[in-house]
Amino acid sequence: MSISLYRATIPVYLRGLTVMADYIRKARAHCEANAVDPVSILTAKLAPDMLDFTAQIQRVSDTAKFAVARLTGVESPKFDDDETTFDQLRDRIANTEAFIAGILEDRFDGAQSRQITLKFRTQQTTMDAVDYLFKFALPNFYFHVTTTHDLLRAQGVEVGKMDYLGPFEMQPV
Amino acid sequence: MSISLYRATIPVYLRGLTVMADYIRKARAHCEANAVDPVSILTAKLAPDMLDFTAQIQRVSDTAKFAVARLTGVESPKFDDDETTFDQLRDRIANTEAFIAGILEDRFDGAQSRQITLKFRTQQTTMDAVDYLFKFALPNFYFHVTTTHDLLRAQGVEVGKMDYLGPFEMQPV
Repeated sequence: MSISLYRATIPVYLRGLTVMADYIRKARAHCEANAVDPVSILTAKLAPDMLDFTAQIQRVSDTAKFAVARLTGVESPKFDDDETTFDQLRDRIANTEAFIAGILEDRFDGAQSRQITLKFRTQQTTMDAVDYLFKFALPNFYFHVTTTHDLLRAQGVEVGKMDYLGPFEMQPV
Repeated sequence: MSISLYRATIPVYLRGLTVMADYIRKARAHCEANAVDPVSILTAKLAPDMLDFTAQIQRVSDTAKFAVARLTGVESPKFDDDETTFDQLRDRIANTEAFIAGILEDRFDGAQSRQITLKFRTQQTTMDAVDYLFKFALPNFYFHVTTTHDLLRAQGVEVGKMDYLGPFEMQPV
């Protein structure tokens, strides 16, 4: 059984971005219902030298758009990382979603021969599209979605595992 | 470009389990170097009603072994969830790794026609192998790996993003 590179990316990122939009809605609702200053959520961190809630959401956007851009060669939109409100973060996610939803399956046609180079401070690594997807792109994306979830949990916002997994078509047992 | 169900699971889980073994080593080293009681890490949580460090590692093991078992029909090993030390958690991860490393590619031959049903409290959902992989198995696995990482960060253990991503074959820039 084989999986197309399209299936392994576009619907996966769209699903994760839907989850992120829901997290942002729930975070705002939590602030409104409990008279919590939104800034306390927007700047919340799990450790002093980790990225805060706002930056985690920016990284979810980046990891999705950069992965799709690298795999297809389509240029990704630029965002300024200047969001300071829930509404602006909601728009960032919506704009990321719009870019990714617009990528058609045939854009992945050349991916097979694409070599992707990742640059770190003093070193770099080069790999094919599938290794890039499973060793870097997907783990990185899920890292920031999960850390957003963990930050909300640590701040007392009511989100649960089913929110993280996203919607399923359910039937009664 | 297409990806086999084997490539999308076995090497992915093995890579994540290698990361987990490293986290456990680093957590123990942190306790030894800083005279920290291991119990404070083993029972650390990000929120009072979240699973602790020990349970996150057990869920990493479960999400890996159950996904592979569901996709191949091979019975997964049973573990008692009775680990109370870093050494026992290391062994749990090693035993999970041994099970997954032993699954050969041809075990996935029938996966194409496999329908997978997930049961929740009062509802259930049925999907094919690829939807199961991308909507449930992989996000769930990465959730628990990332939350283990986030727990260690919140406890001051020195782990970073490169530990989470795992080893790459690097060249100088």
